Amino acid sequence: MEIDHIGIAVRKLEPALAVYGAIGIRATMTEAVPSEGVRVAFLPVGESHIELLEPLAADGPIAKFLENRGEGLHHIALAVDDIQAAMTRARSGGLAVIDEVPRQGARGRKVAFVHPKSTGGVLLEFVQNAPR
Amino acid sequence: MEIDHIGIAVRKLEPALAVYGAIGIRATMTEAVPSEGVRVAFLPVGESHIELLEPLAADGPIAKFLENRGEGLHHIALAVDDIQAAMTRARSGGLAVIDEVPRQGARGRKVAFVHPKSTGGVLLEFVQNAPR
Repeated sequence: MEIDHIGIAVRKLEPALAVYGAIGIRATMTEAVPSEGVRVAFLPVGESHIELLEPLAADGPIAKFLENRGEGLHHIALAVDDIQAAMTRARSGGLAVIDEVPRQGARGRKVAFVHPKSTGGVLLEFVQNAPR
Repeated sequence: MEIDHIGIAVRKLEPALAVYGAIGIRATMTEAVPSEGVRVAFLPVGESHIELLEPLAADGPIAKFLENRGEGLHHIALAVDDIQAAMTRARSGGLAVIDEVPRQGARGRKVAFVHPKSTGGVLLEFVQNAPR
């Protein structure tokens, strides 16, 4: 298991990209994910990434997060080889896996989320690794 | 540069360790860091770690964070080979580096923090890599 990315909610991608660029961390891609109501940028850092999330829709989850808490850390995504197994193990451990079945996330990957009420306040995401 | 760790504020280490244990992520060490008013646990995930932070003192920064925001994501730490160079670059880029000089952090490492007001709401930490 690795940390696939750390999700950060921002009002606009461009000023946030400038912040990370100032310390040598640069985006390799940006992508709209309409199903999540966001535009995202992925910035590689070692084997992991920073994912900046800008709201596309005023009623999406990132827009609501910004309204309630302001800009900042939003979630941690863990890369797993078998997302179904990861979801089953998390459920067996008493965690509240939000998705019944994996949904389509950024970069064409299968993803599933674990509710922060069951993890001590941290929204966790499982991301299925691309075939290796 | 790598993501050295993701810091998570928790009221008590033990229930949080149980959450991460349930998905196969386990602590290799815990340590009191009295200068920061915390007890920490490090849980390796790939090349990175989850750092759980429990307050030791009611007036420390983690106790205040928990009071204001509750449990959850607290900071991102970036591993750098030259912390002085990283601090200088961040300052040149307009970021508010809190520490004038690096302080002693967990695991005997030199660390320095960047204020979230200058980064879009994210508390960033630089951690000097151990000599390789």
